Amino acid sequence: MPELRKDPIVGRWVIISTERGKRPSDFPTEIRKRDTKLCPFCPGNESSTPPEIHVIRENGTSPNSPGWSLRVIPNKFPALRIEGDLNRVGEGIFDKMNGVGAHEVIIETPEHTQDLADLEKNQIENVLWAYRDRIIDLKKDPRFRYIMIFKNQGEPAGASLEHAHSQLIATPIVPKRVYEEIGGSLKYFEYKERCIFCDIIRQETREESRIVSQNEKFVSMEPFASRFPFETWIIPKSHEASYENIQGPDIKSLAVILKDTLRRLALALNNPSYNYVLHSLPVERKYFNEYHWHLEIMPKLTKVAGFEWGTGFFINPTSPEDAARFLREISI
Amino acid sequence: MPELRKDPIVGRWVIISTERGKRPSDFPTEIRKRDTKLCPFCPGNESSTPPEIHVIRENGTSPNSPGWSLRVIPNKFPALRIEGDLNRVGEGIFDKMNGVGAHEVIIETPEHTQDLADLEKNQIENVLWAYRDRIIDLKKDPRFRYIMIFKNQGEPAGASLEHAHSQLIATPIVPKRVYEEIGGSLKYFEYKERCIFCDIIRQETREESRIVSQNEKFVSMEPFASRFPFETWIIPKSHEASYENIQGPDIKSLAVILKDTLRRLALALNNPSYNYVLHSLPVERKYFNEYHWHLEIMPKLTKVAGFEWGTGFFINPTSPEDAARFLREISI
Repeated sequence: MPELRKDPIVGRWVIISTERGKRPSDFPTEIRKRDTKLCPFCPGNESSTPPEIHVIRENGTSPNSPGWSLRVIPNKFPALRIEGDLNRVGEGIFDKMNGVGAHEVIIETPEHTQDLADLEKNQIENVLWAYRDRIIDLKKDPRFRYIMIFKNQGEPAGASLEHAHSQLIATPIVPKRVYEEIGGSLKYFEYKERCIFCDIIRQETREESRIVSQNEKFVSMEPFASRFPFETWIIPKSHEASYENIQGPDIKSLAVILKDTLRRLALALNNPSYNYVLHSLPVERKYFNEYHWHLEIMPKLTKVAGFEWGTGFFINPTSPEDAARFLREISI
Repeated sequence: MPELRKDPIVGRWVIISTERGKRPSDFPTEIRKRDTKLCPFCPGNESSTPPEIHVIRENGTSPNSPGWSLRVIPNKFPALRIEGDLNRVGEGIFDKMNGVGAHEVIIETPEHTQDLADLEKNQIENVLWAYRDRIIDLKKDPRFRYIMIFKNQGEPAGASLEHAHSQLIATPIVPKRVYEEIGGSLKYFEYKERCIFCDIIRQETREESRIVSQNEKFVSMEPFASRFPFETWIIPKSHEASYENIQGPDIKSLAVILKDTLRRLALALNNPSYNYVLHSLPVERKYFNEYHWHLEIMPKLTKVAGFEWGTGFFINPTSPEDAARFLREISI
C-alpha cells in the first residue's frame, strides 16, 4: 500500500510508493520507444491494461477489444490505491495515512503516433468530455477531496509512455497548491468582491500584450508572472469555478482553443515536451463565486534548479509579452 | 533590468529576465563540454569573468590571475542586478519591482575535472567558509532580505557550466518557500515551545532507520516525507538558526559529513546530478529559537511532472528508509 506522509515543517504531503520500492540502479528510466506491438495503449493490447472504466467505441465491438476511439482505464501502477479506508496515524512527531485514491489514464486516441494537438476537433472534444464525466463520477466517492486532471507529454515532462494520454488522480486531501490558489482568490474576493480571474481576463483582453488567441468563450494567454517561458493559460471568459459544469457549446470552443494553442506551441518551439494541469474547485461545495477554473500549460524548456527549489520562485528567461507575440505570429 | 513580478493569485514572485529575452529557437541549451580552454572558471581565463570579490590565492600572485584555489565572482549573466534602488510599482491589478539583488558564483576549485565530492577536506572547508563570509558581507546591504546559497551539479539539475561551482542570490524579498518553512517552525514552537528540527533530530537519531551517517556535530538523514528519492538533509545537532554563525570546529565537521554524504550518493547512484540548497534564517533578526539551519540535497533522478506542478505534492518511488539503508551500506 502506498503511504501518504506529511512534512512536519511545511505541511506538504508526499506519496511514498513503497511497493515500487525503486533501487539505486532503477534510475534513470528511459521512455519506451515507438514500438506499437509493445505499447499497452495501442489497439490489440487491451488485455495488458486493467479493464476499461469509460470508453467510446464502435457499435458491436466488445469491451476491452479494438474498435474504440477513446479509452479510460485504471493506472496499472497507481500512485494511490482505490481500495481501503482512510487511516490517519502518527509515528512519533510524524503523520501519515494510507495511500487511498484513484489513478486513471485517459488514452486520447488509438493512433500511437498522434499527439493531442494532431487530433481532430471532435476527438479532442471527446477527451474533454471524458475529463468531465470521470470527475462527476469520482465526486460521488466520499473519500476523495480533490480530483486532478493532468497531462505529461514527452519524457522531459515526466511521461513514461509516449502514446498520447492524460491522467487523473483523486486524492483524500486537498493539495497544498490548490489551497494556496483558492486562498489567494478568496482574499482578493473579500477585498474587492470580484473574482480575481475575471479581473485578470478584463485587464488582459483590454491590453492584449499577453494574449495568444481568443474566441467567444475562452482566452489563451501568458500569465503576467509566468514561471516558465511560454507558460500559457486557457481560461473561460464567463465565471465558472468547476470544470465539470461545462456544457456542450463550451466544450466545442475549448477544443478549438486548446488545439490552436497546442499547435502554436508545437510550431514555435519544435514540438516541446509539456505538462498541463486542470485547476478546478475541490469536491467540497464552496467558493463558487471566488474561484475560476482554468488550464495551465507549461512547456518544458528550462530546468528547475537549486534556486527555484530553495525559494519557490522562478527565473523566466522569456518575458510573457515576448512569448505571446511569438505565439500570435505563428500562422496556423 | 530584470523585473520581479508577483503572481496576483498565490503571491509567488518570479524573476523575468527581460534582457536575456530568449527566443523560441534559444531552447533547449546544451551544457558546454569539457574544454578547459573555453571554460571561464578555469585558471588562465580569469579575464572572461567579472573581477573577483573574494579569493584564496598563493602569496605573491595578482588578483584575477592564476594561483587561486577558490574564487568568488559576480555572475556575468545575473538573474538580479546589484545596482539601483528598489521600486515597487503597480500595473493595473499586477505588482512588480525592479530586479535588484546580488548574484555571485563560488568557483570551488581551479581543477576543471573535479567535483565538490572529490575535493580535499580543507578545500571543502574553504567553500563553506566562503559561504559564511559572503552571507556576512551581503547582510550589511539594507536592500537585501534573504541570501540563498545553492548548487546545481550536472545539466539535468540546471547547471549551465560543468566546472564545480555554487551560487549565491541575495533577494529584496523573503521567498515564499522560506516563509512557509519558518511559519511551520513557528507554529510548532508556539505549540510545543521546542524547535521542530531539534525534535526531528532526537527522534531520528533514536530510531536510526532514516540516518545516513552522523558525527559529533552533524547528522545526515533522509527526511520522513522525502519529496525525491535519495533526498538527504544535513542538520547541525546543536540548535542554531543562522548558518553564518558557524565556527571553525563546526566547519571541519560539516566538511567531513558533506564529503561523506556526496560520496555515498555518487557511489550509490553513479554520479547523479543534484541540487543542494542551504536553508538559513532571513536577514531580519527574529526566530533564533524557532528555526534551525540545514542543507537539503536533492539528487535529480525523477522528473517533476504535471501532478507535482498541480498539487505541490510529490510522488517518491523510493522510501526514505530504503534510501538510507542503501546509502549506509556504501563503503567509503
